[in-house]
Amino acid sequence: MAHIDFWYAIGSTYSYLTIMRLPDLAAAEGLDIIWRPFDVRHVMTHQNNIPFKDKPVKAAYMWRDIERRAEGYGLPHAHLPAPYPLKHFALANRLAVLGMRQGWGVAYTRAAYRLWFLAGHPPGEEPNNTEALEAAGVDPLKAVAEAESAKIGKALQVETDLAMDLGVFGAPSFVVDGEVFWGDDRLEDAISWLHNGRVTLPQA
Amino acid sequence: MAHIDFWYAIGSTYSYLTIMRLPDLAAAEGLDIIWRPFDVRHVMTHQNNIPFKDKPVKAAYMWRDIERRAEGYGLPHAHLPAPYPLKHFALANRLAVLGMRQGWGVAYTRAAYRLWFLAGHPPGEEPNNTEALEAAGVDPLKAVAEAESAKIGKALQVETDLAMDLGVFGAPSFVVDGEVFWGDDRLEDAISWLHNGRVTLPQA
Repeated sequence: MAHIDFWYAIGSTYSYLTIMRLPDLAAAEGLDIIWRPFDVRHVMTHQNNIPFKDKPVKAAYMWRDIERRAEGYGLPHAHLPAPYPLKHFALANRLAVLGMRQGWGVAYTRAAYRLWFLAGHPPGEEPNNTEALEAAGVDPLKAVAEAESAKIGKALQVETDLAMDLGVFGAPSFVVDGEVFWGDDRLEDAISWLHNGRVTLPQA
Repeated sequence: MAHIDFWYAIGSTYSYLTIMRLPDLAAAEGLDIIWRPFDVRHVMTHQNNIPFKDKPVKAAYMWRDIERRAEGYGLPHAHLPAPYPLKHFALANRLAVLGMRQGWGVAYTRAAYRLWFLAGHPPGEEPNNTEALEAAGVDPLKAVAEAESAKIGKALQVETDLAMDLGVFGAPSFVVDGEVFWGDDRLEDAISWLHNGRVTLPQA
């Protein structure tokens, strides 16, 4: 079955919108979505593409844009700006990779983002780790220990290398049949590509 | 009447999409749009916000994204990538400012973009200047001489300072009731804000 690869990193701000709205949208449209956490920080540093650091006007706009669009999608009211950037980005994404292997990755990711954007508790540290992992139905101490293993670190690197090979340079991104779509605002373009092999947009 | 300020710069790639689709959309929806050319390069340099320079992966994506979306909007097939960045950015935007004062600015802007994206002739130099100005119904030599005056240079600076004061940091941007919307893909959000005071988006 044709599918959409959803490349994201816990720590990406706009990924909040996708992570919150994607499950309902996928169910409504019968979409097969593969959630693929990767180290977007590594990619962006490597490509000299740092979107918000030392850019206060653009960063302020980003939060306002997310706030307006979250309301537009009917998502719960977020307390913005959320703590950013994440201090424990690496562990959060190692947990996501581990969770995708063990079947609880989507539940963990969504719980971690809810705690981050709605309660102000950043992922990758306490109390987010314990609360999000318990919400996903796993033992926090065991999961963190496994996530910190060399094996999971390597798995995150492999996914990150693959994302770069595909042309992914930011998060969230969607890849369909080799076409890259970047940004929560391109999710509909990706779905259109999946169904029709082209982007369809409203015309005047 | 409530209106949308459309801030753009000739030289902005994504502005192509807006410039091509905006007149039909404004007519269909009865929108009052004020076209405001500004020196986005000055703003971006000032804010250390350089989106595509030395970022080949992101730049390649940008062209592909514009190509897909242009097709999605039903626009004429563009020959991409178009020559970028513009060598004569300043003159192109001085001409746009002059034209807005004299009533031919929208026609000039659209003709200059068509020549740039469809025929590969960059704005601000020949043959774009002569062809776009003639298409807008003005004498090219006279218009270029006026555009190069200190008065028009100052007018462009004043508009650019105002854009920055409003929180505009990139092009295209739309400002409605003090709310800034950045990107061709936020035009519908701006229209929604104009009509409803909020952004409305499709929900699953």
